[in-house]
Amino acid sequence: MIGSDLADTRPSVQDVALIVGGGPGVSASCARLFAESGMRVGIAARNTDKPVLQRLETAHGVRRYACDASDPKAVLSLFQNVVGDLGAPTLVVHNIDGRLAGIFRKGIVEADPSMALETLRNSAFSAFLVGQQAARLMRENKINANGAKGTIIFTNASAALKGFPSSGAFAMACHAKSGLAESMARELMPQGIHVANVPIDAAIGWTQEDGSRAHRLAGTTVDDNMVDPDRIAETYLQLHRQHRSTWAFEVVLRPWLEKW
Amino acid sequence: MIGSDLADTRPSVQDVALIVGGGPGVSASCARLFAESGMRVGIAARNTDKPVLQRLETAHGVRRYACDASDPKAVLSLFQNVVGDLGAPTLVVHNIDGRLAGIFRKGIVEADPSMALETLRNSAFSAFLVGQQAARLMRENKINANGAKGTIIFTNASAALKGFPSSGAFAMACHAKSGLAESMARELMPQGIHVANVPIDAAIGWTQEDGSRAHRLAGTTVDDNMVDPDRIAETYLQLHRQHRSTWAFEVVLRPWLEKW
Amino acid sequence: MIGSDLADTRPSVQDVALIVGGGPGVSASCARLFAESGMRVGIAARNTDKPVLQRLETAHGVRRYACDASDPKAVLSLFQNVVGDLGAPTLVVHNIDGRLAGIFRKGIVEADPSMALETLRNSAFSAFLVGQQAARLMRENKINANGAKGTIIFTNASAALKGFPSSGAFAMACHAKSGLAESMARELMPQGIHVANVPIDAAIGWTQEDGSRAHRLAGTTVDDNMVDPDRIAETYLQLHRQHRSTWAFEVVLRPWLEKW
Amino acid sequence: MIGSDLADTRPSVQDVALIVGGGPGVSASCARLFAESGMRVGIAARNTDKPVLQRLETAHGVRRYACDASDPKAVLSLFQNVVGDLGAPTLVVHNIDGRLAGIFRKGIVEADPSMALETLRNSAFSAFLVGQQAARLMRENKINANGAKGTIIFTNASAALKGFPSSGAFAMACHAKSGLAESMARELMPQGIHVANVPIDAAIGWTQEDGSRAHRLAGTTVDDNMVDPDRIAETYLQLHRQHRSTWAFEVVLRPWLEKW
Repeated sequence: MIGSDLADTRPSVQDVALIVGGGPGVSASCARLFAESGMRVGIAARNTDKPVLQRLETAHGVRRYACDASDPKAVLSLFQNVVGDLGAPTLVVHNIDGRLAGIFRKGIVEADPSMALETLRNSAFSAFLVGQQAARLMRENKINANGAKGTIIFTNASAALKGFPSSGAFAMACHAKSGLAESMARELMPQGIHVANVPIDAAIGWTQEDGSRAHRLAGTTVDDNMVDPDRIAETYLQLHRQHRSTWAFEVVLRPWLEKW
Repeated sequence: MIGSDLADTRPSVQDVALIVGGGPGVSASCARLFAESGMRVGIAARNTDKPVLQRLETAHGVRRYACDASDPKAVLSLFQNVVGDLGAPTLVVHNIDGRLAGIFRKGIVEADPSMALETLRNSAFSAFLVGQQAARLMRENKINANGAKGTIIFTNASAALKGFPSSGAFAMACHAKSGLAESMARELMPQGIHVANVPIDAAIGWTQEDGSRAHRLAGTTVDDNMVDPDRIAETYLQLHRQHRSTWAFEVVLRPWLEKW
Repeated sequence: MIGSDLADTRPSVQDVALIVGGGPGVSASCARLFAESGMRVGIAARNTDKPVLQRLETAHGVRRYACDASDPKAVLSLFQNVVGDLGAPTLVVHNIDGRLAGIFRKGIVEADPSMALETLRNSAFSAFLVGQQAARLMRENKINANGAKGTIIFTNASAALKGFPSSGAFAMACHAKSGLAESMARELMPQGIHVANVPIDAAIGWTQEDGSRAHRLAGTTVDDNMVDPDRIAETYLQLHRQHRSTWAFEVVLRPWLEKW
Repeated sequence: MIGSDLADTRPSVQDVALIVGGGPGVSASCARLFAESGMRVGIAARNTDKPVLQRLETAHGVRRYACDASDPKAVLSLFQNVVGDLGAPTLVVHNIDGRLAGIFRKGIVEADPSMALETLRNSAFSAFLVGQQAARLMRENKINANGAKGTIIFTNASAALKGFPSSGAFAMACHAKSGLAESMARELMPQGIHVANVPIDAAIGWTQEDGSRAHRLAGTTVDDNMVDPDRIAETYLQLHRQHRSTWAFEVVLRPWLEKW
């Protein structure tokens, strides 16, 4: 049985998860599931006062860290603090989308160059910084029962799969993140570190203020045309638990009704 | 929690799994895991007298079916018999590699045309026949707790990802299987049927006569340069249990030490 | 200058082109352009009585060959006859689409298995046979001024890039042809034979009975939403003339207005 | 005939080419070929005093522009100056590789973050700036005989096709450039602007001080394991001359002996 088999592996190494990016969708779902699975969990965000993060701390013991993930020094400090508070991470999720409202869906001529550069910094460059610190620490980790020293997961978007019109800056950032992930996978997997790139090819639902889940795009009548972030978190946990004989690098997740 | 959550979904619909292809690696691992997970399981092969299949029947209650999967009538009969014996399938795995020893690693000029056609028939055309019957039955299934009517999984090989030199016929067959899977996914996912293509990008280990597992390529000293078929089976079960809001179509599995 | 520079290379080796597939679009355009460029040209088709082929013979000296390209013996004979009549080919174009009206746009359950197999035979298997004979002869050719012994081009379709719903058999055939081309390119390019795969990602126009060109899809008002086969032929000639220091393997051609 | 046919199209619109990046390989070859083909040509580089650029001016009338292509204001000025001096560009080539010696082949942990960001700025962000100005001007151009208002070509590298180990920053930059190019192609092609991405999958030769061409990797005995930049320039000219009914977006160029 999968569950029981993998459960056996956990006592050998205390899992420490760090989620970088503090949104109410994938990050919150990951924090909850990882905490419920027995991991020590930290979550880093620019603004740690958000209610969703406070709830994660109260209900699940998730530790909050304020961090601008596009700043090399801030990312170095973040990982030092996590090591001190929780131990060396064994699972790191980079979950920053980076798209700026001011540039999204703007044509190439109309897009503001400074926002394009900011998108690259927020998304791809912060992924580089987070991936770098994760790799630095993980290569000193012990090997767990699945033969791994740790797992680094990059959440990505449809724009990693296809450069859509009028979104050149976002296409750059998502493609860059894929290229980074692929390079890191080829470099780090033979060192025992599992690297995965997970493009989510649809809108992602989230928990609303009243506690209900948003799983439907506005204006549609069908259910399940948004991805459930709790299910994304499950896939991340499964990726983390894969044995090193059978690692997946890229998993694209989309709802049954998505056109692709 | 993943395990308990997914466990809850099982009583609602009795899972019936059919594995087409009867080798000692992925097929045997799938049959064991699916049976242990509470499914009724059938396995189809040209020769059902193989010891590995007899053991699956004795130890796990797996039903054996003799079938040439490249023959339309034989495939139709197979599915009719499975429905009669076990019920309509909810999980079908096509696990026929199709490569012929006589043509593998032969240059394009030296490759025997009749073997090239046979490779196409054994692999891609049998995938078409099996996928067709699976889809025909599954679209009449009830929706299970994950919102799905069924899952169709195609095991594939490195040659689906890259056309290697001196293996034109095998590259044709594996690419064809990928094209079929992708077309079926786009057609059937909006009908509630999950279709997945799983290229295994390495040699696959298997259980040897003495019961030990082969996980090492001959002549190497390192462990884990072969894929563990039990882990492939786990991934298949996870794919089958994905909620329709978050379906993966393609998952490439490779060991940590594989060059790619 | 491109034109004059490449023109200089021609006298060194007499180019002999063989086009397999006898439609009024790409095949006819290739035959005309190759003949006008000074090559000896043959064209093979099941039915050589078509007016378009007769005109090619009359106006451009193109030799017609009757051949079922999915029959190994017929393909062997074809190449033997071409060698005897025109000399060993230096440029071979496989231009058979293979889609059968009876199966196109049929759902996976409704598609007739015998038509699916026929599609595979007509398209992918005939590409294998033609590619095999071309490679067999070309590797005995002299090296021309571009450092090449010959060029093998496979015309392909959108279904090679994406498995569309309700076209599983065609997706299989086009993907198979891509896999074959990629394998042959990796095997033959280091032997001096340029192999190219050219998916045409749109409908292809052709010369109508009144001599005018169809460049517009029925029911649309815009020009150029079909590919001009004369321009495809130009690209093929450019591919044939590429120096071996700079070979392109895959070129996707689509009109400016095509969605992709 | 290709040559004569395309020659006819030239008088209708005076071609103005701008090459951004001033190396002795692709940029110099493009400048020479475009000038010989009758275009007015400008070349932009950080340092315009390089002998190769001086020779291009003396021998071919190529205008030199000093420009830091990662600075938005500098790129805006560049295009304003080109319009004033030569006219609005109809062909723009972005030919900046951006890799820094200090970071190339460095592992992810050892790579200097500031160099990673600099690589992104030099390559991907400068491509964004150059593409933006090119698009802004070209959409006001008249349509030429091939139905086009202009052509924008991005030279790219192997790292756009595959994220190699120990080159995360370069993989990010090259993937980003591909994503940008794909987004711009989908947006601008329906507006009559041809956008192409050309990954060169090998080392590129160049003209040495003594006038001879380097076409061989140090330590090898075989010829043609480097790409000839004059042949790359030919492909660029062919891309620029493609009719809008038949545009190629991506062309990967590699020598016959390259492993891929």
